[in-house]
Amino acid sequence: MSKTNRGNFFEDFSVGQVIRHATPRTVTVGDVSLYSALYGTRFAVQSADTFAQDIGYPAAPVDDLLVFHTVFGKTVPDISLNAVANLGYAGGRFLAPVYPGDTLTAVSEVIGLRENSNGQSGVVYVRSVGFNQDGTEVLDYVRWVMVRKADPSLPAPEPVVPTLPAALAPDALGGAVPVLDIEGWRDDLSGSTARFSDYAVGERIDHVDGMTVEEAEHMIATRLYQNTAKVHFNQFTEGQGRFGRRLIYGGHVISIARALSFNGLANAFHIAAINGGRHVAPLFAGLTVHAWSEVLDAQELPGRDDVGALRLRTVATKDQPTADFPLKAENGDYDPSVILDLDYWALIPR
Amino acid sequence: MSKTNRGNFFEDFSVGQVIRHATPRTVTVGDVSLYSALYGTRFAVQSADTFAQDIGYPAAPVDDLLVFHTVFGKTVPDISLNAVANLGYAGGRFLAPVYPGDTLTAVSEVIGLRENSNGQSGVVYVRSVGFNQDGTEVLDYVRWVMVRKADPSLPAPEPVVPTLPAALAPDALGGAVPVLDIEGWRDDLSGSTARFSDYAVGERIDHVDGMTVEEAEHMIATRLYQNTAKVHFNQFTEGQGRFGRRLIYGGHVISIARALSFNGLANAFHIAAINGGRHVAPLFAGLTVHAWSEVLDAQELPGRDDVGALRLRTVATKDQPTADFPLKAENGDYDPSVILDLDYWALIPR
Amino acid sequence: MSKTNRGNFFEDFSVGQVIRHATPRTVTVGDVSLYSALYGTRFAVQSADTFAQDIGYPAAPVDDLLVFHTVFGKTVPDISLNAVANLGYAGGRFLAPVYPGDTLTAVSEVIGLRENSNGQSGVVYVRSVGFNQDGTEVLDYVRWVMVRKADPSLPAPEPVVPTLPAALAPDALGGAVPVLDIEGWRDDLSGSTARFSDYAVGERIDHVDGMTVEEAEHMIATRLYQNTAKVHFNQFTEGQGRFGRRLIYGGHVISIARALSFNGLANAFHIAAINGGRHVAPLFAGLTVHAWSEVLDAQELPGRDDVGALRLRTVATKDQPTADFPLKAENGDYDPSVILDLDYWALIPR
Repeated sequence: MSKTNRGNFFEDFSVGQVIRHATPRTVTVGDVSLYSALYGTRFAVQSADTFAQDIGYPAAPVDDLLVFHTVFGKTVPDISLNAVANLGYAGGRFLAPVYPGDTLTAVSEVIGLRENSNGQSGVVYVRSVGFNQDGTEVLDYVRWVMVRKADPSLPAPEPVVPTLPAALAPDALGGAVPVLDIEGWRDDLSGSTARFSDYAVGERIDHVDGMTVEEAEHMIATRLYQNTAKVHFNQFTEGQGRFGRRLIYGGHVISIARALSFNGLANAFHIAAINGGRHVAPLFAGLTVHAWSEVLDAQELPGRDDVGALRLRTVATKDQPTADFPLKAENGDYDPSVILDLDYWALIPR
Repeated sequence: MSKTNRGNFFEDFSVGQVIRHATPRTVTVGDVSLYSALYGTRFAVQSADTFAQDIGYPAAPVDDLLVFHTVFGKTVPDISLNAVANLGYAGGRFLAPVYPGDTLTAVSEVIGLRENSNGQSGVVYVRSVGFNQDGTEVLDYVRWVMVRKADPSLPAPEPVVPTLPAALAPDALGGAVPVLDIEGWRDDLSGSTARFSDYAVGERIDHVDGMTVEEAEHMIATRLYQNTAKVHFNQFTEGQGRFGRRLIYGGHVISIARALSFNGLANAFHIAAINGGRHVAPLFAGLTVHAWSEVLDAQELPGRDDVGALRLRTVATKDQPTADFPLKAENGDYDPSVILDLDYWALIPR
Repeated sequence: MSKTNRGNFFEDFSVGQVIRHATPRTVTVGDVSLYSALYGTRFAVQSADTFAQDIGYPAAPVDDLLVFHTVFGKTVPDISLNAVANLGYAGGRFLAPVYPGDTLTAVSEVIGLRENSNGQSGVVYVRSVGFNQDGTEVLDYVRWVMVRKADPSLPAPEPVVPTLPAALAPDALGGAVPVLDIEGWRDDLSGSTARFSDYAVGERIDHVDGMTVEEAEHMIATRLYQNTAKVHFNQFTEGQGRFGRRLIYGGHVISIARALSFNGLANAFHIAAINGGRHVAPLFAGLTVHAWSEVLDAQELPGRDDVGALRLRTVATKDQPTADFPLKAENGDYDPSVILDLDYWALIPR
């Protein structure tokens, strides 16, 4: 029996397979501090127990993306250790709040498989679910990833491609947010007076600030999430590879973009769903991330008058300020500066 | 309505204006750990609950400078986002202890304005106050900062320059320290037998050790404080700017100098007041900080026989050991190696 | 009286001398998070309160090496500030579990002295003991270190060289692990089905993964441990020294190797003893660490059927993958890639 995890290859997966991932993780105020220090996030609900309690939380909840990265990290040794590329996310929902002291575990189900025509690799679709210590689902999402075959001579499986929603519906949002006492929300402390009704569909916001990334930072972050993907950590190997350097975990870019988005979206305190996301190009240390957002949709939540939902597209670039909202060229190709194109629902007080 | 914070310009300030700053922050043991790891501070009171409890604290208090940086950070988006330079501090007092779990907020009042003769900028004087969750003042200080005008054609305001104390008086010190049971103070655990009466006015101490600063470190620190000053984070922009690189937050230098000063001032456990401070020259990553201190004064505290106050001048340098106490040339100019000249009161057991 | 600690020189030590080290330290969940983020450790017992509680711990214990580094760090200002080299460890035992909130202190006794024939330095042997706030011993170990003489003209002391065990006996192991309810151990969550009886003496395991080290990372770690050895922090001085750069704390390499060893030793959750260790060569920032292990011995613990002990040799390299287990050349010299040769006992469920 091999004691070293070589990771699963494309032929090791089968549709319907359920994988319970290793290493449960108690999330603590230490993790929250590190997350704050790595990204500089300033959303008041996650920053202060008092602010959170004044609107009805028992305490400041853990940042949604820290939850996401922690759950995602658990899936890596089983799902994507032999990945060629992480292709996309869909249908991500934050289902229950997570507080310091909660312990997260993760389970994935293989919901689709499609071998590539070259027979060298295939796309694996998994739905991953994060649980807290009570067995409550706190997060689920679908991702698909291109995984190498160990033995290209093996026959291709019957292709199964799941139908994925373009976006979550408003009635699927808000599970991770208790009904809030919005009277307690203080705009002077949250950093903005702009609330749900102040945002218009089609509005674009340049988040202005830029953040340069260092090797130590993205590695500290990615290890905090217990994400073991080799490409982020091993300069000896990566120095001889495709890019000549370590690749930064795509989730690190999402967190930077989210933190930058405070400047323009200060009251959009909660990511309720990730409709889809694409890591358009890799990021490397020494480069600077900027971001801008567009309001794609604005919806009330059925039965709730405390918060509304903004569907946002947040685009991050490398070494390119975003005052003119770089996205795509006329031929439809992404601007070469774009590294992230993320579609998500954020909740904001009404 | 603009949703992005462009920061205030000189003409946006008026004397008497009160600004409540955004993003309250619960300070946790996670922040304390990061602070320790970033500076290597070793003062026993802040390092161990047991040591603190043996002298009468309920628990180890949060390092004074972590409190200072956190409060300072909150003021940046409103006060100094368009600053040309941070000119100085005065009258800083630590008024109540802060413990892990406390939540800090900050309010500033504009107490002075003086436009520069070139009409392009002006000096803004603010008194900033940090509060805990009970509304207790934990810190106040004055700083003055040169801020750009957005519209140089606007008329200058009536100049108002506040009178600032050269130093706090001894009766203004000690509010952040409960009356201590100094019998419980163990010099073997604190790291030095030198107490209040062992220091002489005029005495100079070389703190010997040096600390090199990395980009990742000062950015992690500055984000921990939710300080959003652009010059610290954006290599893309700063690479095209005055220095060609990111500037290190001046408070980072203060914390390094304070941590280095343990070697010579191990029992001077608490900064009670910041009389004044000047960031003489910028620091950049890759350079090494050394520090030395001079005892400017030594005073008993009215009505207290547990602790005394040493008025200290701590000078930090870059890439220059401090065995010969570098400070100023004969013409009065600072030695080119000097980056910080800080005047403060520290408390030390009698 | 000099207020600055110049450290002890060889002639300052005497056999039988007992030194209580300064700066007690309360270890918190913040330290645990930083430790996780610096090394990416994934052992389930230390990662999750739930996993630890399911097998009988009151909560997740603090990683053994974080305890070791914290105790070690306290000894540096008194023992090794004037060290030429840290020569070795022996007889290290983990005696009681440490939990977040515990406060650690350290005491060392000089148990041996032997001046070098050149009269410039000598070897100091110390037994260091770490205590928690209740006075319970949590760790003890012997290290020997070559320390400079301040005055080479002083006569050599009578040489005293302690007899040190090559390895701890099985009955000395397990003090830091309560008797466990191994029925509660879940292999799917711990990351491996390989338990005590699945490992064979002589078996070698390549841990596959590599970790590149950055300056910011090893300095943040070493300061977290309040380790003040100058060579790790001061590029200005070290740039003019033997290697032209900062040396990485040897304990940092141990922690990296231990974290890498999860891949192959996922259930070996606890370091019970350090039989010996040698830092074969220095590590510098920018280099990549790999590791492999050999099972040297496997022993039951007297009176316990919950866990067994594997005696492991873990070897770490720089910029050299370890699939072919690099160790020594035919002439007995270490392979130039080897930086660490560590011999320890780890506990693993039966």
